[in-house]
Amino acid sequence: MNTERLLNTVAGLTRLTQDRAPGDDSILDQARDLMRDLVARDDWLPDAFARPHPEFYRQYLLYGDPLDRFSLVSFVWGPGQKTPIHDHTVWGVIAMLRGAELEQHYRRGSGGLAPAGPETRLNPGEVACVSPKIGDIHRVSNAYADRVSISIHLYGGNIGRIRRSVYDPQSGAAKEFVSGYSNGVAANLWAPFSQD
Amino acid sequence: MNTERLLNTVAGLTRLTQDRAPGDDSILDQARDLMRDLVARDDWLPDAFARPHPEFYRQYLLYGDPLDRFSLVSFVWGPGQKTPIHDHTVWGVIAMLRGAELEQHYRRGSGGLAPAGPETRLNPGEVACVSPKIGDIHRVSNAYADRVSISIHLYGGNIGRIRRSVYDPQSGAAKEFVSGYSNGVAANLWAPFSQD
Ligand SMILES: [Fe+3]
Ligand SMILES: [Fe+3]
Ligand SMILES: [Mg+2]
Repeated sequence: MNTERLLNTVAGLTRLTQDRAPGDDSILDQARDLMRDLVARDDWLPDAFARPHPEFYRQYLLYGDPLDRFSLVSFVWGPGQKTPIHDHTVWGVIAMLRGAELEQHYRRGSGGLAPAGPETRLNPGEVACVSPKIGDIHRVSNAYADRVSISIHLYGGNIGRIRRSVYDPQSGAAKEFVSGYSNGVAANLWAPFSQD
Repeated sequence: MNTERLLNTVAGLTRLTQDRAPGDDSILDQARDLMRDLVARDDWLPDAFARPHPEFYRQYLLYGDPLDRFSLVSFVWGPGQKTPIHDHTVWGVIAMLRGAELEQHYRRGSGGLAPAGPETRLNPGEVACVSPKIGDIHRVSNAYADRVSISIHLYGGNIGRIRRSVYDPQSGAAKEFVSGYSNGVAANLWAPFSQD
C-alpha cells in the first residue's frame, strides 16, 4: 500500500488553501489536478475507509482541515446505491477510484427541478467538479447493480458540517440537512493504516 | 464526551503555527496555554487513544499537521512503564491528563549524562515544556506502579518521523531512533469518536 499518496495530496491541499478565504473557487483547477493524481492509482485507500454498508452509501472522512478550508471524503457505494438530489454550497471535486459512478445535474426552475445536461459516467482516474457557479445540484449513483464503487470527494469546506439541502425530485422542494460523517476515526497520514 | 475540546485545540494550534517557520519556539508560551486548557478537564479523550499495552507505553497520534508544523500525541503509560532517556530536537509541551508522571532532565557532560535538577512530578492539569534551548534530554515514567497514566504531548514538528536519539544512562552514548506512532488511524475531529 502506498501510504505517501494520501499524505502528499493532503499536504498539497493544505498549501493550496491556507492563504485563501473560505469558499474561494479560484483554486478549483489546481485542486482538480491534485485529485487526478490521487486517483491515478488505486493503491492507497485503507480498507477501513473502503467498506460498504448493506443499506446506505458511506461518507468516510479521510482528512479534514482544522480551520474548515477543505475536507476529503471517501464515498463508498454499495451495489445500486445512490444519493438523493442534493447541493453542496461549496466547490467540490469528485475523483473516481474504483468502479464507476453516474451523475445527473439539475437546475431549479419555476416548475421545480429540471435535469441539466445528460447523465454522465465517471470511470476510474476521471474527475468532475461541482460549485455554486458551475452547477451545484446533482444526484450521484453507483453505475453498478452488482459491485461496490468508490469515489474520493474534495470540498472547499467541512462538508459534513455544512447546512445544505436535499430536493424532492417531483416538487423540487428543498429540505435542509447536515450529512455528518460515517466514521469516528480518520487516517493517520504518517502510519501504516492498521486498525489497532 | 466533549468532542469540541480536541477540535478547538487543534484549530488554535493550526492558527498559531501556520505562518511560523518550522521549529520557531517563540510560540511556546501560547502553545502551553492551549495545552493547559486541553487538560483542564478529562472529558474528551476517545477510548481508542487511551488504551495501554501490557509491555510498552503507547504513542497515539491524535492529530498531525500535514505540513509537519506540529503533532499532538496521547502517551499512555501502563503501570510502572517508562521511556528510555531521549531527546526531541524540537520544542514540546507535556500536559498531564490522568494519573501522574515523573520527569527527570539530563545534561550531557564530559563524563556522560548527569541529572539536571531534581525529579519532578506532573499531576492532572499541569504542563511542562522541553526544547533544545531549555533542556531537551529527559526520561519520563508513570508515577504509579498499579495504574494507567495518560499525558498529552504537543511537539513543534512531526515527532513520529523525526530522527532523534536515545541515550545510554551509563555511558551517555547516543543512538539514533525514529519513534513512529502506535496507531494507524487518528481522531475524526468532527464526529463522535466511535470506532466503526
Ligand atoms: Fe454531491
Ligand atoms: Fe520526551
Ligand atoms: Mg498563511
